[in-house]
Amino acid sequence: MLAARLGHAFSQPALLRQALTHRSHASVNNERLEFLGDSVLNCIVATLLYRRFPQLPEGDLSRLRSHLVKEAALCELGTMLELGRYLLLGEGEVRSGGANRPSVLADAVEAIVGATYLDAGFAAAEALVTRLYEKTLTDLDPKSLGKDPKTLLQEHLQARKIAVPQYTVLATEGEAHCQLFRVECSIAALSLKTQGEGSSRRAAEQMAAKVAYEKISHD
Amino acid sequence: MLAARLGHAFSQPALLRQALTHRSHASVNNERLEFLGDSVLNCIVATLLYRRFPQLPEGDLSRLRSHLVKEAALCELGTMLELGRYLLLGEGEVRSGGANRPSVLADAVEAIVGATYLDAGFAAAEALVTRLYEKTLTDLDPKSLGKDPKTLLQEHLQARKIAVPQYTVLATEGEAHCQLFRVECSIAALSLKTQGEGSSRRAAEQMAAKVAYEKISHD
Repeated sequence: MLAARLGHAFSQPALLRQALTHRSHASVNNERLEFLGDSVLNCIVATLLYRRFPQLPEGDLSRLRSHLVKEAALCELGTMLELGRYLLLGEGEVRSGGANRPSVLADAVEAIVGATYLDAGFAAAEALVTRLYEKTLTDLDPKSLGKDPKTLLQEHLQARKIAVPQYTVLATEGEAHCQLFRVECSIAALSLKTQGEGSSRRAAEQMAAKVAYEKISHD
Repeated sequence: MLAARLGHAFSQPALLRQALTHRSHASVNNERLEFLGDSVLNCIVATLLYRRFPQLPEGDLSRLRSHLVKEAALCELGTMLELGRYLLLGEGEVRSGGANRPSVLADAVEAIVGATYLDAGFAAAEALVTRLYEKTLTDLDPKSLGKDPKTLLQEHLQARKIAVPQYTVLATEGEAHCQLFRVECSIAALSLKTQGEGSSRRAAEQMAAKVAYEKISHD
């Protein structure tokens, strides 16, 4: 059962039901709870990071928090909780796969945090969020997380006094509205060349940098 | 004394001192507390709005919250608390008027909320923020607040089935990097014409709309 998974027994089960109700299902839905839960979640994740990393500057804390509360991260928590089985969706949403849509799952996670907070106060919400993020926080490496591959690669090279990589567009294909870029990332000092593709030059560069970073950091 | 003004007696006065310490003064400063306090403040203001306006959709709640926690609003709270007298600033900051700078005051307010939260928990921070926002929340009109004048004017006219205003640029003065726009807002059905000035067309339109809205809504 979901309440058991959450580790919180609702004294007002209607709140949990509302948190699981998508706007396509009923006019009393989870949108207001999502608004509230988003801010509660942000606050608790900020607290967890503040305590876990007593030396980290606020810019890094802020970057880590964004990483932990972004849609993809919340969607992962929603999947882990198997929220898709419990969501109340309108018929159209059910047919179009709403129960697996990242935004729907992420919103429901926020709404559940909001519902827990209203049901039993801040400490209960804190206990829930702490449980949900336990593993993520233990594994969290503040040095790499939240940084994009180009930045990671550049910092890795600079620390070893190796010249920064060169990025070259090898090819551009397709029409203006759906172009595909192929980019090469070249690190002369290591005789390393990698490639990446993406719908923008920037995206292609990031992918090329990611491949290069993975090769180098595994060596 | 500040603690009396805040209505919270710190059991760890060092936290309050840190909340008042600008980064120009010491390496142990209020930046991390500001990060934490920002999220605590957001959460508590969200809670106050959620309870105060049980019917308001989440989009409006979100807009109202932005209005209440934006720099100008926090700066006003900081001025009310006379924080400028208590801030610890580096010499350069003191000379350049840092004690009255909106961003410095706003950051210190957030840091104080964070310090209160660490000192005595969420309930203490909630009590502080509730006191700070008591008057603002009582006066808050969810229909108008946070909306820009052009939107307000347009909604006001539409509700009365009056055609939307026409905006015309009357003059543009100055060099490219510091232009001044003068714009006219004309509401034909009311034979009303107002003017506004600003460094962008948009800003000038907003000012003209504000003058028009104030004339109309006072009639």
